Amino acid sequence: MRARVVILGCGFGGLWAARALAKAPAEVIVVDRTNHHLFTPLLYQVATAGLSAPAIAAPIRHILANQRNTTVLLGDAKDIRVKEKQVELDHGARLSYDYLIVATGSAHSYFGNDAWAPYAPGLKTLDDAFEIRSRILLAFERAEREADAAKRAAWLTFVVVGAGATGVELAGTLAEIARHTLRGEFRRFDPRNARIVLVEGSERVLPPYPADLSEKARRQLERLGVTVWLGRRVTGVDADGVTLGAERLSAKTVIWAAGVASSPLGRSLGAPLDRAGRVKVEPDLSVPGYPEIFVAGDLAALEGVPGIAPAAKQMGRHAALNLMRTLSGKPRVPFRYRDYGQLATIGRNAAVAYFGRLKLSGYPAWVVWLVAHIYFLIGFRNRLMVMLDWGWAYWTFDRYARIVTKSSRS
Amino acid sequence: MRARVVILGCGFGGLWAARALAKAPAEVIVVDRTNHHLFTPLLYQVATAGLSAPAIAAPIRHILANQRNTTVLLGDAKDIRVKEKQVELDHGARLSYDYLIVATGSAHSYFGNDAWAPYAPGLKTLDDAFEIRSRILLAFERAEREADAAKRAAWLTFVVVGAGATGVELAGTLAEIARHTLRGEFRRFDPRNARIVLVEGSERVLPPYPADLSEKARRQLERLGVTVWLGRRVTGVDADGVTLGAERLSAKTVIWAAGVASSPLGRSLGAPLDRAGRVKVEPDLSVPGYPEIFVAGDLAALEGVPGIAPAAKQMGRHAALNLMRTLSGKPRVPFRYRDYGQLATIGRNAAVAYFGRLKLSGYPAWVVWLVAHIYFLIGFRNRLMVMLDWGWAYWTFDRYARIVTKSSRS
Repeated sequence: MRARVVILGCGFGGLWAARALAKAPAEVIVVDRTNHHLFTPLLYQVATAGLSAPAIAAPIRHILANQRNTTVLLGDAKDIRVKEKQVELDHGARLSYDYLIVATGSAHSYFGNDAWAPYAPGLKTLDDAFEIRSRILLAFERAEREADAAKRAAWLTFVVVGAGATGVELAGTLAEIARHTLRGEFRRFDPRNARIVLVEGSERVLPPYPADLSEKARRQLERLGVTVWLGRRVTGVDADGVTLGAERLSAKTVIWAAGVASSPLGRSLGAPLDRAGRVKVEPDLSVPGYPEIFVAGDLAALEGVPGIAPAAKQMGRHAALNLMRTLSGKPRVPFRYRDYGQLATIGRNAAVAYFGRLKLSGYPAWVVWLVAHIYFLIGFRNRLMVMLDWGWAYWTFDRYARIVTKSSRS
Repeated sequence: MRARVVILGCGFGGLWAARALAKAPAEVIVVDRTNHHLFTPLLYQVATAGLSAPAIAAPIRHILANQRNTTVLLGDAKDIRVKEKQVELDHGARLSYDYLIVATGSAHSYFGNDAWAPYAPGLKTLDDAFEIRSRILLAFERAEREADAAKRAAWLTFVVVGAGATGVELAGTLAEIARHTLRGEFRRFDPRNARIVLVEGSERVLPPYPADLSEKARRQLERLGVTVWLGRRVTGVDADGVTLGAERLSAKTVIWAAGVASSPLGRSLGAPLDRAGRVKVEPDLSVPGYPEIFVAGDLAALEGVPGIAPAAKQMGRHAALNLMRTLSGKPRVPFRYRDYGQLATIGRNAAVAYFGRLKLSGYPAWVVWLVAHIYFLIGFRNRLMVMLDWGWAYWTFDRYARIVTKSSRS
């Protein structure tokens, strides 16, 4: 009988593992909470109305339709019973496995202040992106209805907490929306007066980047009109703004781009976790004591491997490779991360990037970012759509997806 | 002082009225519950995952940005105080008017059985379309997880209630999704075995059409694989299916395309209403006894004027024209509906259309439908996007927007 491999999560780690198992002599079952694989590096564009959701999301079962050894199930893994080799899904269903690849990724963390969540949504899923899009667009709408100047200013103040890649991208795009996209569309105020504040606890933006690129990114952000506050920690968030120690900033829209916590499923493996809740895996990506279980992507903690899409892909592929080696009686090989560099975009013609010793910023970095993201977008179709959307946006300053629906806050 | 014109609702009636007032010596305020004008004739395509929402929705304030006498407000009109000439909005705001154009349209009606609503969503807004899209896609997902054959059959049975244009379009598209789009993507069943049942109380589909076209539409539907039940009335809807008199049909997905009821705002005008709750307007489109209030679009009842987009546009424009005539001291002119014909699509290469005495069906009707809908889609940008989406879908049988998000039922 063929071995059964269950893959939990179909982000970059899970999908690349599944693909690598296409020819494996195994029954592969892919379980995900949603029906789509999401190109998360462009999620901030959905949140800021630049792309529609289908442009960066593809149905998992469509991607894997021709992989005949693979079944796709929509399901939410609630628990892993490592002793019984079973996964517990929603609706009480159970799924047995011979091998398990856990790739359920990460969520945002409020550092123990979960009460802030309703006032400062984070950005991990399409639903998060719709929520943030609604809040941004509705803030401008409410400002147009507001007669009181102080209240209007609060509607026109946007705070982004955390200056990692997502925070930088959100803040830069918000500044562009206020300065260009919405120009001339309001009668009671000039959207160019909107205030975008990017708050970061450490002393520079993009902390994992080389220091000179961080400084270049900060200058590019300020040129776009973003106010950058470094070395300042948010100590409170409520419906009317944020508190930073003794200081108070009135803002009706706060976006959380600061903390990352791992999927709670990691705990059910009974393995050692790091501070962020990630599973400390063996060099072959398996869980200590359970060689039949692998962890790939953001949920895996390995020295020197960052929580970015290329690393997750490499881990997913490597876990599948080791699994196949075990199936054919060969010894496993340790995972080695290949660092192709990192990229972050800030706005129109503004970005930073480094590849080994090569560092880029401004227009050249932005062009590299553009080409890389279009190239890696899954599916020819989506690539074409995103290119057209961006071409349009670049020439017209227009943003395609400025739609608010009721599912979000009204 | 300039007269203030308030327009409630920015569908086809409201938007065409607003545009016609671009040069009027008046202050124009457009109020809508959403931030977008929606091209409703293609809403069924969003519901069936063929188009993304932004392809058929454009921000109202973007459309009207260059119309300097016009302000756009996001707001929900709760009541009209005809004596005080005031509109009451949400959040307790009040808006005075000298002239009022009410164009708040229609909603779906369950003929007094509002308890059916949670089990049989209708299709009027983008949120409705997302809800229906989720239900359709999740039904196939649940079928793949279901081991019991009878239960799986219920997940694979789709009932569309009402065979007007929307019902016919939804049923035909559902059949195409089952037969083509999802082919080869499931392991436990063949999606081509899904059952699509279109139930209509009267003796033919598309009741307002000439009888021979109705018959042709029925045959085209059956060729696509739709089961058409004529002369049968739904007497009950619950979580597990529909009841038709003594008969019972197990179906986990039911879509309501049967009844239309007018916006409740019509009642606050104190004017005579017809059976569907529409306001019986004067020939000049004003409300009896209140010459400063006009009604345009689906909310207006006028003999011989159908509830379709072209009629709403004509009424909106005409209300604005009469308003401007009054402003410049001229007498008003009665509204005359110009019938350019009607079109309904059924599926790939399948449609029916009539223009006066000219009747078309099948491929020629489908081509006319395609050209007309792309032509009338607002904004060059959206037209281009829809053309590309459709071109892709036609050649690949793929559907672009197969995305389910949590905002809908999980």
